[in-house]
Amino acid sequence: MTIDTTRPVTADDRQEDRTTVPDPDVARPVQPGRGTLRGAGLGEVTLDSGFWGDRQRTNAAATLQHCADWMERLGWVGNFDRVATGTTGPERPGWQFSDSEVYKLLEALAWEHGRSGDPAVEALFDRLVDRVLPAEDVDGYLNTCFGHPGRPDRYSDLASGHELYCAGHLLQAAVARLRTHGEDRFTRLGRRVADHVLREFGPEARAGICGHPEIEVALAEFARATGEDRYRAQAELFVERRGHGTLPTIDLLGPAYFQDEVPVRETEAWHGHAVRALYLAAGAVDVAVDGGDDDLLDALGRQWDRTVERRTYVTGGMGSRHQDEGFGDDWELPPDRAYCETCAGIASNMVSWRLYLATGRVEHVDLMERTSYNVLATSPDADGTAFFYANPLQQRVAGTEVLPDAVNARAEGGLRAPWFDVSCCPTNVARTLASWHAYAAAVDGGDTGVLLQYAAGDVRLALDAGTLLLRVDTRYPDDGVVRVTVVEAPTGARLRLRVPSWATGAELARSGDGTRDVAPGWAEVDGVRAGDVVVLRLPTTPRFSWPDPRVDAVRGTIAVERGPLVLCLESTDLPPGSSLDDVRVDVEAAPRPHADGATVRARLVTTAEPAGTRPPFGARPPVTRAGGAFDLPLVPYHRWAQRGPATMRVHLPVA
Amino acid sequence: MTIDTTRPVTADDRQEDRTTVPDPDVARPVQPGRGTLRGAGLGEVTLDSGFWGDRQRTNAAATLQHCADWMERLGWVGNFDRVATGTTGPERPGWQFSDSEVYKLLEALAWEHGRSGDPAVEALFDRLVDRVLPAEDVDGYLNTCFGHPGRPDRYSDLASGHELYCAGHLLQAAVARLRTHGEDRFTRLGRRVADHVLREFGPEARAGICGHPEIEVALAEFARATGEDRYRAQAELFVERRGHGTLPTIDLLGPAYFQDEVPVRETEAWHGHAVRALYLAAGAVDVAVDGGDDDLLDALGRQWDRTVERRTYVTGGMGSRHQDEGFGDDWELPPDRAYCETCAGIASNMVSWRLYLATGRVEHVDLMERTSYNVLATSPDADGTAFFYANPLQQRVAGTEVLPDAVNARAEGGLRAPWFDVSCCPTNVARTLASWHAYAAAVDGGDTGVLLQYAAGDVRLALDAGTLLLRVDTRYPDDGVVRVTVVEAPTGARLRLRVPSWATGAELARSGDGTRDVAPGWAEVDGVRAGDVVVLRLPTTPRFSWPDPRVDAVRGTIAVERGPLVLCLESTDLPPGSSLDDVRVDVEAAPRPHADGATVRARLVTTAEPAGTRPPFGARPPVTRAGGAFDLPLVPYHRWAQRGPATMRVHLPVA
Repeated sequence: MTIDTTRPVTADDRQEDRTTVPDPDVARPVQPGRGTLRGAGLGEVTLDSGFWGDRQRTNAAATLQHCADWMERLGWVGNFDRVATGTTGPERPGWQFSDSEVYKLLEALAWEHGRSGDPAVEALFDRLVDRVLPAEDVDGYLNTCFGHPGRPDRYSDLASGHELYCAGHLLQAAVARLRTHGEDRFTRLGRRVADHVLREFGPEARAGICGHPEIEVALAEFARATGEDRYRAQAELFVERRGHGTLPTIDLLGPAYFQDEVPVRETEAWHGHAVRALYLAAGAVDVAVDGGDDDLLDALGRQWDRTVERRTYVTGGMGSRHQDEGFGDDWELPPDRAYCETCAGIASNMVSWRLYLATGRVEHVDLMERTSYNVLATSPDADGTAFFYANPLQQRVAGTEVLPDAVNARAEGGLRAPWFDVSCCPTNVARTLASWHAYAAAVDGGDTGVLLQYAAGDVRLALDAGTLLLRVDTRYPDDGVVRVTVVEAPTGARLRLRVPSWATGAELARSGDGTRDVAPGWAEVDGVRAGDVVVLRLPTTPRFSWPDPRVDAVRGTIAVERGPLVLCLESTDLPPGSSLDDVRVDVEAAPRPHADGATVRARLVTTAEPAGTRPPFGARPPVTRAGGAFDLPLVPYHRWAQRGPATMRVHLPVA
Repeated sequence: MTIDTTRPVTADDRQEDRTTVPDPDVARPVQPGRGTLRGAGLGEVTLDSGFWGDRQRTNAAATLQHCADWMERLGWVGNFDRVATGTTGPERPGWQFSDSEVYKLLEALAWEHGRSGDPAVEALFDRLVDRVLPAEDVDGYLNTCFGHPGRPDRYSDLASGHELYCAGHLLQAAVARLRTHGEDRFTRLGRRVADHVLREFGPEARAGICGHPEIEVALAEFARATGEDRYRAQAELFVERRGHGTLPTIDLLGPAYFQDEVPVRETEAWHGHAVRALYLAAGAVDVAVDGGDDDLLDALGRQWDRTVERRTYVTGGMGSRHQDEGFGDDWELPPDRAYCETCAGIASNMVSWRLYLATGRVEHVDLMERTSYNVLATSPDADGTAFFYANPLQQRVAGTEVLPDAVNARAEGGLRAPWFDVSCCPTNVARTLASWHAYAAAVDGGDTGVLLQYAAGDVRLALDAGTLLLRVDTRYPDDGVVRVTVVEAPTGARLRLRVPSWATGAELARSGDGTRDVAPGWAEVDGVRAGDVVVLRLPTTPRFSWPDPRVDAVRGTIAVERGPLVLCLESTDLPPGSSLDDVRVDVEAAPRPHADGATVRARLVTTAEPAGTRPPFGARPPVTRAGGAFDLPLVPYHRWAQRGPATMRVHLPVA
C-alpha cells in the first residue's frame, strides 16, 4: 500500500504544550514497572572532568553535530523532505534503515538537553523535528524508504525492511523527549506512530515481526513513559511471535540470524546477529518485568549467564563473526576476527542494566563496567568525530589512513573512521554517552543509594526520606581510590558500593570506623550521615587474565587488565624491526603499573623463516630463538590506534 | 542492450562433423605452449579400483546424473529454454551464474566420455547441448540472466553479473569437447561465444573485466585448443586490465575482493575471494607461459610460495573467512571458521598444476597431493551425491540432519548436502574427478615418464621414442609401498618418481640394483627396460604436525598426518559423555597406525565449570584435572561426518 498523502502540519504541531511536565532530574532511560531498584536520573548525577565526564562533554561538543552534519550531507535527513514534498523515487540515499540514525540522534539530543540544558542542543533537536514531522503519513506511518511513490510498499519486506525497527528508534527518542521535556509535537508524533504500529500489528491485525528487533524494547518503554499498558502488550506480542520461523531467509541469513528459529523463552544462549539478539533480549526483559512473567525473566537471566560465560570477549565485546555480525558457537572467540560491534556492546549494556534493575545482581553491573570501558569507550576517538564499528582484539595488519571525507567500510581498517556505509554506531554512541551517568548510580528500596560506576562528581539521589547528597572524588580508573563524602543524608539512609569482580583485596574505610576488607560484590554502609567519609580502595595493580582452555583461539596466551581496563600491546611500542608475532610474555614476572597501563616482562623470539613451499605446519616443533628479556609497555585497549596505524594484540603468547 | 532474437538452430548445428579429429588418449585439460613437461592424457593413465579409481567411478555412476537432475529440477537448465522461447522475465530461477553450473557439468561429461567412452555420458552431453544451443543470441552472446526481455541489460553489471565467468566455463567445456571429440556444434558455439567476447572486450572495445575471474584461464586454454593466439591475447588483456580499481564496490566487497586493487604482477600474496584469486592466477600462469612473460611467471611463483607459507591450512585448504569466502591475513588460519571452499581447493590445484608444468618444481605437486586428499576428496560423500562446500578443520557443534531434498546453505551445517543455493562445488568436483588421472603422471622432455600421484593402474605414456608402459601396484595411501613394473619401454627411457615432502626416510629399490634412500623431491631411474621392477617405499607411519607459532589460532596443538592424509578426531570416537574440548594429546607418545588412521595417547581433562557471570577469562590459570591416559582413534579427515553428525577437530590441544 502506497500512501502519498502526508499529514499536513497543523498548528498543533507547532505548539510547545506540556500537558505533563516531568521532573528532568529523575528522567532516565529505563523505568521498570516493578522492583525495588531505580536508576539515577539525569539530574541526580553530575560528572566532573574525568574518564566519562570528558567523554560526555566531547559527545555534546562534537559528536552530536558531527552526526547531524553527516546525515545532512548524505541525504538521510533530506529523505524526510522528499517524502513530505512527494519527490521520493527509486533512487534514495542511504540504507533502508537510515531514518533510525536520525531518530537515534534525536534521542541523544533529548538526553543531552536533559543533562545539560544547552539551548543549542534543543535548537538542533527542533531543526531535525522540523524535517521529520512533515514526512508522516495521514495514518501515522512514517518511513522514508517504503510506502511512497517509486518506493516499495509498506511492510512488503518485514525481514530486511527495518520499518518497525525505525519506528522503535523514533519511540525511544520520544521516550527521551517525554521524560526530559514533556509532551510536544514530537512526542505526539511518537504516539501516532505507536498507535499505527498497534493497528497494523495488533492481535487482530497481521501477525508480523520485524527482522531487526527494536520495536519491542521501544514499545515497552513507551508504555512506561505514557502509562499506557497496551504498548507493553504489543511488545509482548512481538516477543511471543518470535521464534516460529515466520521470517524468510534473506540471502544466506536464515531464521537463527533473526532469532526467529527458537522462541525467546526457549533460547539457551544468544545467537545470530548480536545487536538483534541483544535488543530483543532487552525488550523481553522489559516485557517480563512489567508483565510479571518470572519464567521469562529467569530464562533471560540464564541466557545472559550462558552468553557471558562462553560467548563474550575479555573486553565484554560480543559477536565473533563478521559474516552475519553475529555470535559464534560456545568458546568461539577469535581475537583477530572478533566483530564486537560497538552497537552490540551498547545493546549488551541495555540488557545488563535491565537485568540488574530486575534482580539486583552485581554481575550485571560488573559486565557493564567491562563493556563500557573496553567497548563503548573504545569506539570514539578523543575528538568524538571518528569511531570504531568493530572492535577486534588483534590487528594483524596496520590500518591504512582513513580519509576524513570518506564513507568507510564498517568493520575493517584498523583505524577509527568518521562515518560508515552502515553508520549505526556513531549515533548509538552519542545517545549512550549522553545518558551514561544515569547508569552510574541507583536507588534501592527508597532508602539506599547505590554507587555502581565510579567517577568524580556529585550524586544527589532522591530517597523516600529526603536527599542523599554525595560528593565523589576519584581518579578512577587511573587509580582505585574512591572517596565518597556524605554531604547530606536523611535518617536511616544506606549506601551501597559495588566492589568489582576483579577487585580482590579491596578495602573500605568509613570515617570513625576502621578499615575493613570487602569482597567483590556489594559493600553496604548503614546509617550514613552528613560528614561521613567513605573510602573504597580498589586494587588496580595490573593483573594477568588467563583464558578458559576451551577458548581455542587464545590458547597459550594471557591478557593484561588493570582495574576495569583491558590493556593491549601496540606495535608502536615495540623495538624497531620487531613484530607483535614475536612477543612472548614471561608470566613469572607480574605486570607492573606504567602510566595508565602496565609493563610486562617479555622476550622477542625469532622463528625460523618457513620455506615457502608448504603450509605452515611441520614435522617438528618450530625452532625459535629468544632474545633478551625487556619490559614492554601496554596501553589501555580503549586508546588503541590513537597514535596512528599499528598492529595490536590483547592476548599475548606466553613464553 | 537487450537482444531477444536468438540464433535459429541450423542444420549445421545438428551435424556431427569432426574437421579435426583429436587423439583422445592424450587429451588433457592443460596444454602449455612451451616447456618440456606435458601432463598425461586421459587415455594414458587407467586407474584400478582404489582411492581415486573408486571416486572416478562413483563420479561417473552417480555425480554426473545427480548434478543434471538438480539443475533440471531447479530450472537452471530450463533457463536456456526460456531464452530460446522468449519467455524470460523478472522471475528467473537460480543465481546470475547458474549457467556456469550447466557448463561445468558439460565439461565433466566431456572429460568423462574421453576417459570411459560411455555412450550414456555422451547422450547426456548431447541432451544438455540440445537445451543450451537454442539460447544463443544471433551475435554469439549466450547468457540466460542478462540481455533478454525482463532481464537486465548485457554487461550492465560486470562486478557481479558473472557473464564473462559463465562464458569462460562454456569455453572450458568446449576445450574438453574439442580435445576428447573434436569440433562439433558445441565447440562451434564456443568459438562464436569466444569471438563475441573478443568483439565486446577486445583492445578497441570496452575495457571491462569480470568480477569473477575465469574467462582468462578459459580463453588461454581455448587458444591452445584452437591454435588461435588471439584468444590468448584477449586473456592477457583481461589479466593486465585487472588491479586498477575499475570494478565498483558491491555491498561491502571492495576491489581487494575482486583482485582489482593491485595489478596481478605486483601482488604479494593471494587475497580476497579465494576462488577468484586462484582462477585468476591460473589464467595468469597460462598467459605468462604462452606469452613468454617470465617476469609475470616469477611473480606468480612467489605469490604461490607466500600464500602456501602463510595462508594455507594443513589440509591444503585455502580461504580463512566466511564473510567474503576469502583469504585472511598472513597466519590467519582459524580451524573452526576455516572456509576452505571445495572450489578453492580445486582452483589451487589448477594453479599448482600449471606452475608445475612451467617450472617442474616438486613442491607444486606436493601441494596438489595434500589438497587432493584433504579437500577435493573430502567434499563428496561415498555415494557421490552429497558434498561439502566449506571444509572447516574444527566442528564445534554437531551438524543437524540434511534433508535430501533441500537446497542447503553452502558453508554451514557440518554435514554433506546434496545441493546448495550456490552450488558451484558439486559440478566442480565432477569435472575435476573425471580428469583427475591426467594429473597423476607426466612426460618430461620426451624421454622421461614422471609419476606424480600414486594409484594402482596402468600408465601408458607416449615418449618420443615409443611407449613407456608401466604397471603400478599399490594400496596407497593406506600403505606407502608403490611397485612399478616396466612392461614396455623404449631405449633410453627414464622414470621419475615423486618422493613427497612428508616422506622422510623413503627408499627406492630397482630390481637388480639394491635399495637406496631417496630424499623428498624427485627420484630418478635411468634407462628403464621392460621387466624392471621399481619399488618405492614411502613411510606412512602416522606423524605429528606442529604449527608455525605465528598461526595463533592453533597455538598449543598438534595435527596428525599419515602419508598424504590429514587425520581428525570425531566425537563419535570419544568415550560417552566426554567432549572434544577435553582432549589433551600426549606428544611424548608417538601416534600409532590404526586402521587407515592412527591412535594418539591422550587424556581427558575436566575444566572447572565457569561461574557464568563473567567472560571466560580469569585471574588464575584455569584448574583442570586430567583423567587416565588412553588411546584415541583418529580417522582420515576426508571421511569426517560420514558416520553421522559429530563434532570434529584436526588440531588437538597438547597435554
